[in-house]
Amino acid sequence: MSIKLTILGCHSATPRENAHPTAQFLQIKSRNFLIDCGEGTQTLLRRHQISFSKIKHIFISHLHGDHFFGLVGLIATFGLYNREHDLHIYGPKGLKEIILLQLKYSKSWTKYKLFFHELESKESELIYEDKKVEVHTLPLDHRIYTNGFLFKEKIGERKLNMEAVGNYPEIEVCDFHNLKRGKDFRSADGKTTISNNELTFPPKKALSYAFCSDTAYKPELVPLLQGVDLLYHESTFLEDKKELASITKHATAKDAANIASQANVSHLILGHFSNRYKDLDAFLSEAQTIYKNCSLAETGKIFEIKS
Amino acid sequence: MSIKLTILGCHSATPRENAHPTAQFLQIKSRNFLIDCGEGTQTLLRRHQISFSKIKHIFISHLHGDHFFGLVGLIATFGLYNREHDLHIYGPKGLKEIILLQLKYSKSWTKYKLFFHELESKESELIYEDKKVEVHTLPLDHRIYTNGFLFKEKIGERKLNMEAVGNYPEIEVCDFHNLKRGKDFRSADGKTTISNNELTFPPKKALSYAFCSDTAYKPELVPLLQGVDLLYHESTFLEDKKELASITKHATAKDAANIASQANVSHLILGHFSNRYKDLDAFLSEAQTIYKNCSLAETGKIFEIKS
Repeated sequence: MSIKLTILGCHSATPRENAHPTAQFLQIKSRNFLIDCGEGTQTLLRRHQISFSKIKHIFISHLHGDHFFGLVGLIATFGLYNREHDLHIYGPKGLKEIILLQLKYSKSWTKYKLFFHELESKESELIYEDKKVEVHTLPLDHRIYTNGFLFKEKIGERKLNMEAVGNYPEIEVCDFHNLKRGKDFRSADGKTTISNNELTFPPKKALSYAFCSDTAYKPELVPLLQGVDLLYHESTFLEDKKELASITKHATAKDAANIASQANVSHLILGHFSNRYKDLDAFLSEAQTIYKNCSLAETGKIFEIKS
Repeated sequence: MSIKLTILGCHSATPRENAHPTAQFLQIKSRNFLIDCGEGTQTLLRRHQISFSKIKHIFISHLHGDHFFGLVGLIATFGLYNREHDLHIYGPKGLKEIILLQLKYSKSWTKYKLFFHELESKESELIYEDKKVEVHTLPLDHRIYTNGFLFKEKIGERKLNMEAVGNYPEIEVCDFHNLKRGKDFRSADGKTTISNNELTFPPKKALSYAFCSDTAYKPELVPLLQGVDLLYHESTFLEDKKELASITKHATAKDAANIASQANVSHLILGHFSNRYKDLDAFLSEAQTIYKNCSLAETGKIFEIKS
């Protein structure tokens, strides 16, 4: 089990040469997810040698430009490269209208299929699921309708303890399937029962990543984030701009650390820095007064966790 | 009289690290015009230290993404910087709907006034005029409705020949205004008439710049471009891809040179290069078999002409 997160952009508001708006590339259980897509994201994907064809699902947190102005360009580029795979886009209602209007005027309808999954709910909901992964929304508190996203591996199969299994000649290969799924062994004649715990090891821990971009301090998130392995939480400001954070519905580094601490997450990543701050280490210092295990997001930085 | 053109982006299709889509910044008679605005243009404006507040008029040739996907971000950034000046945008019908839809969903209405001048005519028309400059459309031949733009200085005043004027004590300062405007001198009593030619020098040549982006070879442009000082003409392909140029309604370097030659322009700039070509010098070589005075566009390159 492993999660690999590549930070593409992690600054707020306007794109600048060395301060790119939000975009992240998440690899979880061989799934490849793009999260937010500020202007310039396609150039950053190239820079970090992330193949366009890998991306089949894009999650957009909200319709402020620094989180989605790069999306229409990416969709157009996929088209120019003769993409054939479907593309699924999850984001607030309105996104479909915005994208399709531009494709209409440019007469650039894509040959691949575009699926929009528009979000309106103010409650956390399951928006993506397959055999190995699920994605839930995390309703955030921002100036416009905004969701974070919780990406979770599903718990895998138990691992056979082959040494223990070898002690019981009555266990056959065709029984392995049930054992991996946690069932006790029962012989065909019903005379022998062996506890699953004796024959298997527990599955590896299922990992999780939560992305909370653009939100005021929202303690209601804590139960949703409980025990998450990796949490990205925006920290646009430091406490010196607490009032501005409140007006603009953003968080401070201290707010992010408080959420991480209360939710017992394993590691916190800070990002979405306002360009008024030149010394980003101050974000780390402020957060670490409350929560030690944290890092700053940075273009090109990779966070990898394994279980 | 001078024209200063800064190339921001000059490549076709998708933005890449060192190949930016079309955008140019034109300074003519103290007016500052942005021409096209591909994704990433605002970052290029910063890189070339072009003040955002200078830009009051933006001209968009057509609604293919590599010519306007950077516009909504620039408009949003102007808003974040508390711009107060009006902004005038000239472009195809549809552009207003695209921009306003995104501002609506992001609840980011600008505090400054946005004026859209939507273009639909298939004939060349005057779309901007002030005391010193005028801008005309150049209808192009592309897959969707597309205009180039012709930027022309107006002819200035004649320059007084002070030595000649000094020979006539009856000429007073209050007469200078009429002399500069080309009128002959007539004394108050009507007895003396002096030809304007004797008293003034001709005005400096009025300069002109024509931007022809995304067009098949279109000889009908020649009369509109006659004698232009600086011509940017797209050359997406070389002659080796003549058929592809025809299908996609683009020009080759030879096409661009043919137009420049027939229109007797002073200097030709080639741009909008397809990324299939690694050696851009081949564009220059091909064009120069027909027309010598030409250059390749390049990010950051400045073309300056004076009269």
